[in-house]
Amino acid sequence: MKKYNDLQLHVPGIKMSGIYSGVKKSRNDLGIIFTEKGVSAGVFTQNKIKAAPVLINQDHIKNPITKIILVNSGNANACTGELGYSNALETIDSIATKMNVLPDEVLIASTGIIGKQMEMDKILKNLDPLIDSISLNSYTEFPESITTTDTYNKVCSCEIHLEDTVVTISGVAKGSGMIHPNMATMLGFLQTDANISKKMLQLILSDVVKDTFNMISVDGDTSTNDMVLAISSQQAKHSLINNKNDSFKAISLGIKYVCKMLAISIAKDGEGATKLIECNLLNGKTQSDAKKMAKAIIQSSLVKTAIFGNDANWGRIICALGYSNCDLNPDKIDLSIQGNSFKLDLIKNGVGIYFDEVYAIKILENEKVIINVDVNMGKYNATAWGCDLTYDYIKINAEYRT
Amino acid sequence: MKKYNDLQLHVPGIKMSGIYSGVKKSRNDLGIIFTEKGVSAGVFTQNKIKAAPVLINQDHIKNPITKIILVNSGNANACTGELGYSNALETIDSIATKMNVLPDEVLIASTGIIGKQMEMDKILKNLDPLIDSISLNSYTEFPESITTTDTYNKVCSCEIHLEDTVVTISGVAKGSGMIHPNMATMLGFLQTDANISKKMLQLILSDVVKDTFNMISVDGDTSTNDMVLAISSQQAKHSLINNKNDSFKAISLGIKYVCKMLAISIAKDGEGATKLIECNLLNGKTQSDAKKMAKAIIQSSLVKTAIFGNDANWGRIICALGYSNCDLNPDKIDLSIQGNSFKLDLIKNGVGIYFDEVYAIKILENEKVIINVDVNMGKYNATAWGCDLTYDYIKINAEYRT
Repeated sequence: MKKYNDLQLHVPGIKMSGIYSGVKKSRNDLGIIFTEKGVSAGVFTQNKIKAAPVLINQDHIKNPITKIILVNSGNANACTGELGYSNALETIDSIATKMNVLPDEVLIASTGIIGKQMEMDKILKNLDPLIDSISLNSYTEFPESITTTDTYNKVCSCEIHLEDTVVTISGVAKGSGMIHPNMATMLGFLQTDANISKKMLQLILSDVVKDTFNMISVDGDTSTNDMVLAISSQQAKHSLINNKNDSFKAISLGIKYVCKMLAISIAKDGEGATKLIECNLLNGKTQSDAKKMAKAIIQSSLVKTAIFGNDANWGRIICALGYSNCDLNPDKIDLSIQGNSFKLDLIKNGVGIYFDEVYAIKILENEKVIINVDVNMGKYNATAWGCDLTYDYIKINAEYRT
Repeated sequence: MKKYNDLQLHVPGIKMSGIYSGVKKSRNDLGIIFTEKGVSAGVFTQNKIKAAPVLINQDHIKNPITKIILVNSGNANACTGELGYSNALETIDSIATKMNVLPDEVLIASTGIIGKQMEMDKILKNLDPLIDSISLNSYTEFPESITTTDTYNKVCSCEIHLEDTVVTISGVAKGSGMIHPNMATMLGFLQTDANISKKMLQLILSDVVKDTFNMISVDGDTSTNDMVLAISSQQAKHSLINNKNDSFKAISLGIKYVCKMLAISIAKDGEGATKLIECNLLNGKTQSDAKKMAKAIIQSSLVKTAIFGNDANWGRIICALGYSNCDLNPDKIDLSIQGNSFKLDLIKNGVGIYFDEVYAIKILENEKVIINVDVNMGKYNATAWGCDLTYDYIKINAEYRT
């Protein structure tokens, strides 16, 4: 696999575009992904309050063909009742007519403020310019069009070889706040030209999301709008993937790589974050335990503020481990922190060991802080990603809507 | 019932004291509650990592008689292994010998930094001065001795009449950070002279905690040291309460009042908090649903920061409601905010209604902000309390240990 982190490769058969419609104060806020004939897969928020686009997509995704993914940022079209739902349908009908596709070949996604009706005039009058600007490569225009409080565009790609054919997988995501995916996270869009059946694409996406987007948290809030969509133009010349053969495994690894990098990118760019926190939980009794413990640690406000303050306050990590409600023997826990190549043991067999505070600060000052916890209860590992909790998180969220 | 919020009444038969031992940088950090012959009840943290005092108390609480509760702040004696455990036992043995009681008539509690061994010299050499200062009333000395980052002492009392006898219930608690009780919260100590059996006292305490201490959250972190202890001198002259009679009900109400006021006091004084948030969840399908939804709302970092910023961003409240994973019909939700006598409807039947932003800000500027959510799914109500999330929470916790 050839990996291209922070780079968006062009995927044969897939075009995109992003423009400014005026819903956001500045920056692109309307985007489109288009393929002549594609198959799609999707995973959606498990929040009981689902935004109109989520509800519509859960229906449209059943269609065998998907040609368009239309996205807007600045308004989530969530908690907008019947009007919000019919606004989303009207937008779909309009783009479908203009591009000569069927409405149920269109998926739609929104992100932004909850509870405000869409400014339909701005959306509708900008569909033509959006269509006009569709191109083979829109490396910054589309990624920007889906951002809200993100401080950078989140893209990642890879190439894999299937039967001597190069297959491209490219992904774009947005994150920032209200990030605590329980299934999918915020918005993520994967594009590929792999010749893969809709069923297999869905299988891979559903599986991969569990270890990637579902293992990050910024603030513990699962959004009403989360979704990850994958679309394939099926243009690659290898034979169709319609069972779990070697090509299935290869494409799974590629999709997993892209999803993982996008997820990390979202965690790193959490609202106000100055650091990425990675927690490697080793030797949990079950897979579910390992995941729960890793997530409890990266979610703890106290762990997050300690890391912001370069404070090796491991008691807070152990505390989070303890309330995650997993099988645990306090006397068996080993814990170390790590930044780049430095590593520092803090706990052996459940008891704190002497460590050099200056050395600890040096590690915690890194942009990426790794927490390794070995609970020695079994053989299951998990990794979760989060970010520190800072003054800027408060600033961003106390002043977001105003 | 005569209520005395923010006041600690003397309880006949119970004495206390608090002094400075040097474990904390300043303020009292060593306290004692003493009764000649008392019965006790307790509820303890459900964190799997339990501090030494919690483990010891879970054993000592089985003893029919409790005479002493010894508390220190500044060091939690958690994650301190065998040495921590034996240090706690040594402290108990020492105070027991000095006061001529049996070791298992002593309960012990600690709060403060996790993972640091107790400075035993400071504790042991201060037991004599502590005993010397025991008095009938220690209205500020004891409450201060159990605080950490608390900005004020948390006390509450009430008097009830049982068979023409005045019975006093008095409570002291400490809170601030790592507050997300799952059973008991941080430290809470109730004293009464009610003539009540140990078994009935435990029944009441276990029950009352569910609707009071367990319904608050500051930061979602369940501590390793949480405990609420109740002790009775049994000196009141009414007949013994040893079944669920009218006196049982009366004393339950008194204990509930004190626990509720202490819990609210803890929520209000959450680290860095400027406001108390109360969420009244109405008409949930089950009691468990109502509680889960109310807690999800007061725990949401996004709701907390919005309220800090005086922003009526109700989308975040609805979002939290949605991910609490309870039975919910989005179209049936009514929501209003309230501060003192002002009340403002924000949502009717799941859809946002027009409201005056200036009026909303006026409500949100109150020191107590009430969120009323009617989900119209059944008949169960619950109330939860929390606080806003502010710059000072970050400041306190990024710099706590250093």
